Amino acid sequence: MKSHRTIRITLEYDGTRYSGWQRQRGAITIQQAVEEVLQQLFQQKIRIEGSGRTDAGVHALGQVASFKIDAAHDRGILKRGARLNRGRLMLALNSLLPDDIVVTDAREVPPNFHARHSAKKKRYSYYILNRRYSSAIHRERCYFYPSHLNLNLLRRASKVLTGKHSFRAFASESFKKKSYVRNLTRLSIRRHGDLLKFTFEADGFLYNMIRNIVGTLLEAGRGKISAADVRRILHSEKRHLAGPKVPAHGLYLEKVSY
Amino acid sequence: MKSHRTIRITLEYDGTRYSGWQRQRGAITIQQAVEEVLQQLFQQKIRIEGSGRTDAGVHALGQVASFKIDAAHDRGILKRGARLNRGRLMLALNSLLPDDIVVTDAREVPPNFHARHSAKKKRYSYYILNRRYSSAIHRERCYFYPSHLNLNLLRRASKVLTGKHSFRAFASESFKKKSYVRNLTRLSIRRHGDLLKFTFEADGFLYNMIRNIVGTLLEAGRGKISAADVRRILHSEKRHLAGPKVPAHGLYLEKVSY
Repeated sequence: MKSHRTIRITLEYDGTRYSGWQRQRGAITIQQAVEEVLQQLFQQKIRIEGSGRTDAGVHALGQVASFKIDAAHDRGILKRGARLNRGRLMLALNSLLPDDIVVTDAREVPPNFHARHSAKKKRYSYYILNRRYSSAIHRERCYFYPSHLNLNLLRRASKVLTGKHSFRAFASESFKKKSYVRNLTRLSIRRHGDLLKFTFEADGFLYNMIRNIVGTLLEAGRGKISAADVRRILHSEKRHLAGPKVPAHGLYLEKVSY
Repeated sequence: MKSHRTIRITLEYDGTRYSGWQRQRGAITIQQAVEEVLQQLFQQKIRIEGSGRTDAGVHALGQVASFKIDAAHDRGILKRGARLNRGRLMLALNSLLPDDIVVTDAREVPPNFHARHSAKKKRYSYYILNRRYSSAIHRERCYFYPSHLNLNLLRRASKVLTGKHSFRAFASESFKKKSYVRNLTRLSIRRHGDLLKFTFEADGFLYNMIRNIVGTLLEAGRGKISAADVRRILHSEKRHLAGPKVPAHGLYLEKVSY
Protein backbone atom coordinates (compact mmCIF):
# COMPACT_ATOMS: atom_id res chain seq x y z
CA MET A 1 0.00 0.00 0.00
CA LYS A 2 2.51 2.54 1.20
CA SER A 3 4.90 1.48 -1.50
CA HIS A 4 3.20 3.62 -4.18
CA ARG A 5 5.19 6.70 -4.92
CA THR A 6 4.32 9.64 -7.19
CA ILE A 7 6.89 11.03 -9.61
CA ARG A 8 6.69 14.21 -11.63
CA ILE A 9 8.84 14.64 -14.74
CA THR A 10 9.40 17.61 -17.03
CA LEU A 11 9.76 16.91 -20.74
CA GLU A 12 11.21 18.71 -23.72
CA TYR A 13 10.13 17.31 -27.09
CA ASP A 14 10.24 17.93 -30.79
CA GLY A 15 6.67 17.27 -31.91
CA THR A 16 7.52 16.89 -35.61
CA ARG A 17 7.48 13.10 -35.69
CA TYR A 18 4.53 12.54 -33.31
CA SER A 19 0.73 12.46 -33.55
CA GLY A 20 0.56 14.69 -30.48
CA TRP A 21 0.66 13.88 -26.79
CA GLN A 22 -2.24 11.58 -26.20
CA ARG A 23 -2.04 7.81 -26.59
CA GLN A 24 -4.07 6.60 -29.55
CA ARG A 25 -4.32 3.42 -31.56
CA GLY A 26 -2.25 3.18 -34.74
CA ALA A 27 -0.26 6.36 -34.16
CA ILE A 28 3.02 7.23 -32.44
CA THR A 29 2.45 9.66 -29.58
CA ILE A 30 4.63 11.25 -26.91
CA GLN A 31 2.62 9.73 -24.05
CA GLN A 32 3.07 6.25 -25.48
CA ALA A 33 6.80 6.69 -26.11
CA VAL A 34 7.36 7.84 -22.52
CA GLU A 35 5.13 5.14 -21.01
CA GLU A 36 6.96 2.41 -22.91
CA VAL A 37 10.30 3.58 -21.55
CA LEU A 38 8.97 3.85 -17.97
CA GLN A 39 7.52 0.35 -18.20
CA GLN A 40 10.79 -0.99 -19.53
CA LEU A 41 12.71 0.69 -16.71
CA PHE A 42 10.39 -0.14 -13.81
CA GLN A 43 9.05 -3.47 -15.13
CA GLN A 44 5.42 -2.64 -14.37
CA LYS A 45 2.42 -1.13 -16.11
CA ILE A 46 2.61 2.67 -15.83
CA ARG A 47 0.09 5.29 -16.96
CA ILE A 48 1.27 8.89 -17.12
CA GLU A 49 -0.88 11.99 -16.89
CA GLY A 50 0.23 15.03 -18.87
CA SER A 51 -0.55 18.59 -17.80
CA GLY A 52 -2.60 18.67 -20.99
CA ARG A 53 -2.55 17.35 -24.52
CA THR A 54 -0.40 18.90 -27.19
CA ASP A 55 -1.51 18.44 -30.80
CA ALA A 56 0.36 16.69 -33.57
CA GLY A 57 3.47 18.73 -34.45
CA VAL A 58 3.38 20.95 -31.35
CA HIS A 59 6.66 21.13 -29.40
CA ALA A 60 7.32 21.34 -25.67
CA LEU A 61 10.11 22.83 -23.62
CA GLY A 62 8.43 22.18 -20.29
CA GLN A 63 5.57 19.68 -20.50
CA VAL A 64 4.92 18.12 -17.10
CA ALA A 65 3.69 14.57 -16.50
CA SER A 66 3.06 12.56 -13.35
CA PHE A 67 2.75 8.85 -12.63
CA LYS A 68 2.60 6.38 -9.77
CA ILE A 69 5.05 3.58 -9.21
CA ASP A 70 4.77 0.52 -7.05
CA ALA A 71 8.22 0.79 -5.49
CA ALA A 72 7.90 -2.68 -3.99
CA HIS A 73 8.14 -4.11 -7.50
CA ASP A 74 10.38 -1.65 -9.31
CA ARG A 75 13.55 -3.79 -9.17
CA GLY A 76 14.99 -1.55 -6.48
CA ILE A 77 15.23 1.56 -8.61
CA LEU A 78 13.31 3.63 -6.08
CA LYS A 79 14.44 2.27 -2.75
CA ARG A 80 11.74 2.20 -0.09
CA GLY A 81 11.93 5.34 2.00
CA ALA A 82 15.06 6.47 0.23
CA ARG A 83 15.15 9.82 -1.52
CA LEU A 84 14.72 9.69 -5.27
CA ASN A 85 18.04 9.81 -7.09
CA ARG A 86 16.93 12.39 -9.66
CA GLY A 87 20.15 12.41 -11.64
CA ARG A 88 20.16 8.63 -11.97
CA LEU A 89 16.48 8.46 -12.98
CA MET A 90 16.92 11.22 -15.59
CA LEU A 91 20.01 9.55 -17.01
CA ALA A 92 18.24 6.17 -17.22
CA LEU A 93 15.15 7.64 -18.91
CA ASN A 94 17.15 9.78 -21.34
CA SER A 95 19.31 6.85 -22.37
CA LEU A 96 16.17 4.86 -23.26
CA LEU A 97 14.06 7.64 -24.83
CA PRO A 98 14.32 8.55 -28.54
CA ASP A 99 16.48 11.66 -28.99
CA ASP A 100 13.50 13.92 -29.80
CA ILE A 101 12.14 13.47 -26.25
CA VAL A 102 14.28 14.56 -23.29
CA VAL A 103 13.52 14.47 -19.55
CA THR A 104 14.79 17.78 -18.15
CA ASP A 105 13.67 17.28 -14.54
CA ALA A 106 12.38 14.50 -12.28
CA ARG A 107 11.25 14.70 -8.66
CA GLU A 108 9.10 12.87 -6.17
CA VAL A 109 5.88 14.70 -5.28
CA PRO A 110 3.11 14.21 -2.69
CA PRO A 111 0.65 11.40 -3.60
CA ASN A 112 -2.17 13.87 -4.33
CA PHE A 113 -0.17 15.61 -7.07
CA HIS A 114 -1.72 15.29 -10.53
CA ALA A 115 -0.04 16.91 -13.54
CA ARG A 116 -3.36 18.09 -15.02
CA HIS A 117 -5.58 18.75 -12.01
CA SER A 118 -2.88 20.46 -9.96
CA ALA A 119 -1.76 22.83 -12.76
CA LYS A 120 -2.34 26.50 -11.93
CA LYS A 121 -1.00 28.25 -15.00
CA LYS A 122 0.47 27.45 -18.39
CA ARG A 123 2.76 29.36 -20.69
CA TYR A 124 2.94 28.78 -24.44
CA SER A 125 5.00 30.51 -27.12
CA TYR A 126 4.31 30.83 -30.81
CA TYR A 127 7.17 31.68 -33.18
CA ILE A 128 6.74 33.32 -36.57
CA LEU A 129 9.51 33.88 -39.10
CA ASN A 130 8.54 37.17 -40.74
CA ARG A 131 10.73 37.78 -43.78
CA ARG A 132 10.45 37.34 -47.53
CA TYR A 133 12.08 33.90 -47.68
CA SER A 134 11.85 30.82 -45.49
CA SER A 135 14.59 29.48 -43.20
CA ALA A 136 16.49 26.29 -43.95
CA ILE A 137 17.71 25.97 -40.37
CA HIS A 138 14.50 26.82 -38.50
CA ARG A 139 11.89 25.55 -40.96
CA GLU A 140 10.37 23.01 -38.54
CA ARG A 141 10.63 25.32 -35.53
CA CYS A 142 8.60 28.39 -36.57
CA TYR A 143 5.80 29.39 -38.94
CA PHE A 144 7.04 31.16 -42.04
CA TYR A 145 4.85 34.20 -42.73
CA PRO A 146 6.21 36.48 -45.46
CA SER A 147 3.57 39.28 -45.40
CA HIS A 148 4.57 42.53 -43.75
CA LEU A 149 3.36 42.74 -40.14
CA ASN A 150 2.98 45.94 -38.19
CA LEU A 151 4.05 45.31 -34.58
CA ASN A 152 1.99 48.20 -33.22
CA LEU A 153 -1.18 46.90 -34.88
CA LEU A 154 -0.43 43.41 -33.57
CA ARG A 155 0.02 44.68 -30.03
CA ARG A 156 -3.04 46.91 -30.12
CA ALA A 157 -5.21 43.97 -31.23
CA SER A 158 -3.65 41.63 -28.67
CA LYS A 159 -4.53 43.97 -25.76
CA VAL A 160 -8.21 43.35 -26.45
CA LEU A 161 -7.77 39.69 -25.55
CA THR A 162 -6.00 39.79 -22.20
CA GLY A 163 -8.13 39.28 -19.11
CA LYS A 164 -11.02 37.01 -18.25
CA HIS A 165 -13.25 36.29 -21.25
CA SER A 166 -15.18 33.58 -22.96
CA PHE A 167 -12.75 32.53 -25.70
CA ARG A 168 -15.31 30.41 -27.52
CA ALA A 169 -14.71 32.34 -30.78
CA PHE A 170 -11.14 30.99 -30.72
CA ALA A 171 -11.93 27.37 -29.78
CA SER A 172 -12.37 24.60 -32.34
CA GLU A 173 -16.08 24.16 -32.93
CA SER A 174 -15.92 20.45 -32.24
CA PHE A 175 -14.74 21.30 -28.73
CA LYS A 176 -17.71 21.38 -26.32
CA LYS A 177 -17.20 22.56 -22.77
CA LYS A 178 -19.37 23.71 -19.89
CA SER A 179 -17.39 26.94 -19.74
CA TYR A 180 -15.33 28.74 -22.34
CA VAL A 181 -14.11 31.33 -19.87
CA ARG A 182 -10.36 31.50 -19.36
CA ASN A 183 -8.18 34.10 -17.71
CA LEU A 184 -5.50 35.18 -20.21
CA THR A 185 -3.03 36.90 -17.88
CA ARG A 186 -0.40 37.58 -20.52
CA LEU A 187 -0.24 38.00 -24.28
CA SER A 188 3.04 39.62 -25.27
CA ILE A 189 4.60 40.00 -28.69
CA ARG A 190 8.31 40.57 -29.19
CA ARG A 191 10.40 40.96 -32.31
CA HIS A 192 13.95 39.53 -32.39
CA GLY A 193 15.22 40.34 -35.89
CA ASP A 194 13.06 38.39 -38.36
CA LEU A 195 11.47 36.37 -35.58
CA LEU A 196 8.22 37.26 -33.81
CA LYS A 197 7.58 35.57 -30.48
CA PHE A 198 4.05 35.50 -29.06
CA THR A 199 3.84 34.50 -25.40
CA PHE A 200 0.57 33.38 -23.80
CA GLU A 201 -0.11 32.75 -20.12
CA ALA A 202 -3.45 31.60 -18.74
CA ASP A 203 -5.06 29.36 -16.15
CA GLY A 204 -5.94 27.09 -19.08
CA PHE A 205 -6.48 27.11 -22.82
CA LEU A 206 -9.31 25.87 -25.02
CA TYR A 207 -8.62 23.46 -27.86
CA ASN A 208 -6.66 25.26 -30.62
CA MET A 209 -7.20 28.59 -28.82
CA ILE A 210 -3.65 29.86 -29.27
CA ARG A 211 -3.36 28.89 -32.91
CA ASN A 212 -6.73 30.52 -33.68
CA ILE A 213 -5.81 33.69 -31.78
CA VAL A 214 -2.45 33.99 -33.57
CA GLY A 215 -4.16 33.49 -36.95
CA THR A 216 -6.58 36.30 -36.08
CA LEU A 217 -3.88 38.63 -34.78
CA LEU A 218 -1.89 38.15 -38.00
CA GLU A 219 -4.85 39.57 -39.93
CA ALA A 220 -4.77 42.56 -37.57
CA GLY A 221 -0.99 42.88 -38.02
CA ARG A 222 -1.48 43.09 -41.79
CA GLY A 223 -4.14 45.77 -41.34
CA LYS A 224 -6.97 43.60 -42.70
CA ILE A 225 -8.93 43.90 -39.45
CA SER A 226 -8.76 46.38 -36.56
CA ALA A 227 -8.45 45.95 -32.81
CA ALA A 228 -12.16 46.81 -32.62
CA ASP A 229 -12.87 43.93 -35.03
CA VAL A 230 -10.90 41.57 -32.79
CA ARG A 231 -13.01 42.71 -29.85
CA ARG A 232 -16.20 42.07 -31.85
CA ILE A 233 -14.95 38.59 -32.78
CA LEU A 234 -14.17 37.85 -29.11
CA HIS A 235 -17.63 38.97 -27.95
CA SER A 236 -19.44 37.19 -30.80
CA GLU A 237 -18.27 33.78 -29.49
CA LYS A 238 -18.46 32.62 -33.13
CA ARG A 239 -15.51 30.64 -34.40
CA HIS A 240 -16.26 31.38 -38.08
CA LEU A 241 -15.64 35.11 -37.52
CA ALA A 242 -12.08 34.57 -36.26
CA GLY A 243 -9.02 34.14 -38.50
CA PRO A 244 -7.56 30.88 -39.76
CA LYS A 245 -5.68 28.51 -37.46
CA VAL A 246 -1.89 28.77 -37.83
CA PRO A 247 0.19 25.55 -38.13
CA ALA A 248 1.29 23.44 -35.16
CA HIS A 249 5.06 23.62 -35.72
CA GLY A 250 5.36 27.23 -34.42
CA LEU A 251 3.80 26.34 -31.04
CA TYR A 252 5.71 25.43 -27.85
CA LEU A 253 4.39 24.48 -24.44
CA GLU A 254 6.96 26.38 -22.38
CA LYS A 255 6.04 25.99 -18.77
CA VAL A 256 3.40 24.62 -16.41
CA SER A 257 3.15 26.20 -12.97
CA TYR A 258 1.82 24.43 -9.87
CA MET B 1 30.11 37.12 -75.92
CA LYS B 2 28.70 40.04 -73.98
CA SER B 3 25.69 38.01 -73.01
CA HIS B 4 27.47 36.25 -70.12
CA ARG B 5 26.43 37.64 -66.80
CA THR B 6 27.74 36.84 -63.33
CA ILE B 7 25.35 36.24 -60.45
CA ARG B 8 26.15 35.94 -56.77
CA ILE B 9 23.74 34.21 -54.42
CA THR B 10 23.71 33.85 -50.64
CA LEU B 11 22.53 30.53 -49.23
CA GLU B 12 21.21 29.30 -45.91
CA TYR B 13 21.21 25.53 -45.50
CA ASP B 14 20.67 22.76 -43.01
CA GLY B 15 23.64 20.45 -43.60
CA THR B 16 22.09 17.43 -41.82
CA ARG B 17 20.96 15.63 -44.96
CA TYR B 18 23.95 16.45 -47.17
CA SER B 19 27.45 15.07 -47.77
CA GLY B 20 28.82 18.59 -47.57
CA TRP B 21 29.10 21.34 -50.16
CA GLN B 22 31.22 19.89 -52.90
CA ARG B 23 29.83 17.90 -55.78
CA GLN B 24 30.86 14.25 -55.61
CA ARG B 25 29.79 11.04 -57.25
CA GLY B 26 27.24 8.89 -55.42
CA ALA B 27 26.44 11.45 -52.72
CA ILE B 28 23.91 14.27 -52.34
CA THR B 29 25.67 17.61 -51.89
CA ILE B 30 24.56 21.23 -51.59
CA GLN B 31 26.48 22.30 -54.70
CA GLN B 32 24.77 19.64 -56.78
CA ALA B 33 21.29 20.44 -55.44
CA VAL B 34 21.74 24.14 -56.28
CA GLU B 35 23.26 23.49 -59.71
CA GLU B 36 20.39 21.20 -60.66
CA VAL B 37 17.85 23.86 -59.80
CA LEU B 38 19.78 26.58 -61.69
CA GLN B 39 20.06 24.33 -64.74
CA GLN B 40 16.36 23.59 -64.60
CA LEU B 41 15.54 27.29 -64.35
CA PHE B 42 17.97 28.63 -66.97
CA GLN B 43 18.00 25.59 -69.27
CA GLN B 44 21.78 25.51 -69.61
CA LYS B 45 24.75 23.85 -67.96
CA ILE B 46 25.76 25.90 -64.91
CA ARG B 47 28.71 25.40 -62.57
CA ILE B 48 28.67 27.30 -59.28
CA GLU B 49 31.69 28.27 -57.18
CA GLY B 50 31.21 28.35 -53.42
CA SER B 51 33.21 30.65 -51.14
CA GLY B 52 34.60 27.40 -49.75
CA ARG B 53 33.56 23.86 -48.99
CA THR B 54 31.57 23.01 -45.95
CA ASP B 55 31.83 19.45 -44.62
CA ALA B 56 29.07 16.88 -44.28
CA GLY B 57 26.65 18.03 -41.60
CA VAL B 58 27.92 21.62 -41.39
CA HIS B 59 25.23 24.31 -41.69
CA ALA B 60 25.31 27.71 -43.36
CA LEU B 61 23.51 30.96 -42.71
CA GLY B 62 25.47 32.95 -45.30
CA GLN B 63 27.33 30.74 -47.76
CA VAL B 64 28.06 32.67 -50.97
CA ALA B 65 28.24 31.16 -54.43
CA SER B 66 28.75 32.67 -57.89
CA PHE B 67 28.03 31.45 -61.39
CA LYS B 68 27.92 32.67 -64.99
CA ILE B 69 24.88 32.57 -67.20
CA ASP B 70 24.60 32.90 -70.94
CA ALA B 71 21.71 35.36 -70.92
CA ALA B 72 21.19 34.90 -74.67
CA HIS B 73 19.93 31.39 -73.97
CA ASP B 74 18.27 31.68 -70.58
CA ARG B 75 14.67 31.75 -71.88
CA GLY B 76 14.48 35.49 -71.21
CA ILE B 77 14.82 35.23 -67.42
CA LEU B 78 17.70 37.70 -67.35
CA LYS B 79 16.78 40.20 -70.05
CA ARG B 80 19.75 41.55 -71.99
CA GLY B 81 20.88 44.81 -70.43
CA ALA B 82 17.99 44.82 -68.01
CA ARG B 83 18.64 44.91 -64.28
CA LEU B 84 18.34 41.60 -62.51
CA ASN B 85 14.97 41.15 -60.88
CA ARG B 86 16.36 39.83 -57.57
CA GLY B 87 13.02 39.17 -55.95
CA ARG B 88 11.81 37.17 -58.94
CA LEU B 89 15.01 35.14 -59.18
CA MET B 90 15.00 34.36 -55.43
CA LEU B 91 11.35 33.34 -55.55
CA ALA B 92 11.95 31.06 -58.57
CA LEU B 93 14.98 29.41 -56.98
CA ASN B 94 13.35 28.97 -53.56
CA SER B 95 10.25 27.42 -55.09
CA LEU B 96 12.44 24.81 -56.83
CA LEU B 97 14.99 24.13 -54.05
CA PRO B 98 14.39 21.54 -51.30
CA ASP B 99 13.24 23.24 -48.11
CA ASP B 100 16.57 22.72 -46.32
CA ILE B 101 18.31 25.06 -48.78
CA VAL B 102 17.14 28.69 -49.05
CA VAL B 103 18.46 31.54 -51.22
CA THR B 104 18.52 34.61 -48.97
CA ASP B 105 20.04 37.05 -51.49
CA ALA B 106 20.79 37.27 -55.21
CA ARG B 107 22.54 40.01 -57.14
CA GLU B 108 24.41 40.63 -60.36
CA VAL B 109 28.15 41.25 -59.84
CA PRO B 110 31.05 42.34 -62.10
CA PRO B 111 32.34 39.54 -64.39
CA ASN B 112 35.60 39.22 -62.44
CA PHE B 113 33.78 38.33 -59.19
CA HIS B 114 34.54 34.84 -57.91
CA ALA B 115 32.95 33.57 -54.68
CA ARG B 116 36.15 31.88 -53.51
CA HIS B 117 38.96 34.04 -54.92
CA SER B 118 37.30 37.35 -54.09
CA ALA B 119 36.48 36.43 -50.46
CA LYS B 120 38.28 38.66 -47.95
CA LYS B 121 37.04 37.31 -44.64
CA LYS B 122 34.83 34.55 -43.27
CA ARG B 123 32.87 34.21 -40.08
CA TYR B 124 31.89 30.86 -38.55
CA SER B 125 30.02 30.04 -35.35
CA TYR B 126 30.13 26.90 -33.28
CA TYR B 127 27.29 26.18 -30.82
CA ILE B 128 27.60 23.98 -27.76
CA LEU B 129 24.75 22.97 -25.48
CA ASN B 130 26.36 22.82 -22.06
CA ARG B 131 23.96 21.23 -19.59
CA ARG B 132 23.44 17.81 -18.04
CA TYR B 133 20.85 16.59 -20.53
CA SER B 134 20.52 16.92 -24.29
CA SER B 135 17.94 19.05 -26.13
CA ALA B 136 15.06 17.52 -28.08
CA ILE B 137 14.45 20.74 -30.01
CA HIS B 138 18.04 21.72 -30.85
CA ARG B 139 19.67 18.28 -31.05
CA GLU B 140 20.74 18.66 -34.70
CA ARG B 141 21.73 22.31 -34.30
CA CYS B 142 24.37 22.26 -31.57
CA TYR B 143 26.89 19.91 -29.96
CA PHE B 144 25.72 18.51 -26.63
CA TYR B 145 28.58 18.67 -24.12
CA PRO B 146 27.52 17.84 -20.54
CA SER B 147 30.85 18.40 -18.69
CA HIS B 148 31.16 21.59 -16.69
CA LEU B 149 32.99 24.34 -18.61
CA ASN B 150 34.65 27.34 -17.02
CA LEU B 151 34.07 30.38 -19.26
CA ASN B 152 37.13 32.21 -17.91
CA LEU B 153 39.42 29.28 -18.66
CA LEU B 154 37.89 28.98 -22.14
CA ARG B 155 38.45 32.67 -22.85
CA ARG B 156 41.98 32.70 -21.49
CA ALA B 157 42.95 29.76 -23.73
CA SER B 158 41.20 31.28 -26.75
CA LYS B 159 43.23 34.53 -26.46
CA VAL B 160 46.40 32.55 -27.25
CA LEU B 161 45.03 31.75 -30.71
CA THR B 162 43.97 35.12 -32.07
CA GLY B 163 46.34 36.81 -34.47
CA LYS B 164 48.53 35.63 -37.33
CA HIS B 165 49.90 32.12 -36.73
CA SER B 166 50.59 28.86 -38.43
CA PHE B 167 47.52 26.83 -37.46
CA ARG B 168 48.97 23.55 -38.71
CA ALA B 169 48.43 21.89 -35.29
CA PHE B 170 44.68 22.41 -35.83
CA ALA B 171 44.48 21.28 -39.48
CA SER B 172 43.62 17.73 -40.52
CA GLU B 173 46.87 15.92 -41.23
CA SER B 174 45.71 14.83 -44.66
CA PHE B 175 45.47 18.50 -45.59
CA LYS B 176 48.71 19.64 -47.27
CA LYS B 177 49.19 23.31 -48.07
CA LYS B 178 52.05 25.61 -48.98
CA SER B 179 51.20 27.81 -46.05
CA TYR B 180 49.36 27.10 -42.83
CA VAL B 181 49.43 30.72 -41.75
CA ARG B 182 46.06 32.36 -41.23
CA ASN B 183 45.07 35.59 -39.54
CA LEU B 184 42.44 34.80 -36.87
CA THR B 185 41.04 38.29 -36.26
CA ARG B 186 38.34 37.19 -33.83
CA LEU B 187 37.66 34.30 -31.49
CA SER B 188 34.91 35.21 -29.07
CA ILE B 189 32.97 32.99 -26.68
CA ARG B 190 29.59 33.95 -25.28
CA ARG B 191 27.21 32.16 -22.99
CA HIS B 192 23.44 32.49 -23.52
CA GLY B 193 21.88 30.35 -20.80
CA ASP B 194 22.90 26.74 -21.50
CA LEU B 195 24.26 27.64 -24.92
CA LEU B 196 27.88 28.55 -25.66
CA LYS B 197 28.55 30.36 -28.92
CA PHE B 198 32.08 30.43 -30.34
CA THR B 199 32.59 32.98 -33.12
CA PHE B 200 35.60 32.80 -35.46
CA GLU B 201 36.69 35.38 -38.02
CA ALA B 202 39.71 34.99 -40.29
CA ASP B 203 40.99 35.62 -43.78
CA GLY B 204 40.62 31.88 -44.30
CA PHE B 205 40.49 28.60 -42.42
CA LEU B 206 42.40 25.35 -42.79
CA TYR B 207 40.53 22.08 -43.19
CA ASN B 208 38.76 21.20 -39.89
CA MET B 209 40.59 24.06 -38.15
CA ILE B 210 37.56 25.35 -36.25
CA ARG B 211 36.38 21.94 -35.09
CA ASN B 212 39.89 21.04 -33.91
CA ILE B 213 40.31 24.37 -32.11
CA VAL B 214 36.95 24.02 -30.35
CA GLY B 215 37.83 20.45 -29.28
CA THR B 216 41.09 21.75 -27.81
CA LEU B 217 39.47 24.74 -26.09
CA LEU B 218 36.91 22.42 -24.45
CA GLU B 219 39.78 20.58 -22.75
CA ALA B 220 41.01 23.95 -21.49
CA GLY B 221 37.48 24.87 -20.35
CA ARG B 222 37.37 21.67 -18.28
CA GLY B 223 40.74 22.48 -16.74
CA LYS B 224 42.50 19.48 -18.33
CA ILE B 225 45.00 21.75 -20.10
CA SER B 226 46.07 25.35 -19.52
CA ALA B 227 46.30 28.39 -21.79
CA ALA B 228 50.08 27.82 -21.83
CA ASP B 229 49.45 24.26 -23.08
CA VAL B 230 47.29 25.63 -25.88
CA ARG B 231 50.12 28.00 -26.82
CA ARG B 232 52.56 25.06 -26.87
CA ILE B 233 50.19 23.05 -29.06
CA LEU B 234 49.86 26.00 -31.47
CA HIS B 235 53.63 26.44 -31.74
CA SER B 236 54.32 22.69 -32.05
CA GLU B 237 52.42 22.57 -35.37
CA LYS B 238 51.63 18.94 -34.47
CA ARG B 239 48.04 17.86 -34.94
CA HIS B 240 48.31 14.93 -32.54
CA LEU B 241 48.97 17.28 -29.60
CA ALA B 242 45.70 19.16 -30.11
CA GLY B 243 42.32 18.01 -28.77
CA PRO B 244 39.73 15.90 -30.59
CA LYS B 245 37.64 17.28 -33.44
CA VAL B 246 34.11 18.24 -32.38
CA PRO B 247 31.14 17.12 -34.56
CA ALA B 248 29.97 18.95 -37.67
CA HIS B 249 26.40 19.70 -36.58
CA GLY B 250 27.44 22.55 -34.21
CA LEU B 251 29.20 24.48 -36.99
CA TYR B 252 27.68 27.30 -39.08
CA LEU B 253 29.23 29.32 -41.90
CA GLU B 254 27.75 32.67 -40.93
CA LYS B 255 29.11 35.27 -43.31
CA VAL B 256 31.57 35.78 -46.16
CA SER B 257 32.89 39.31 -46.68
CA TYR B 258 34.14 40.69 -50.03
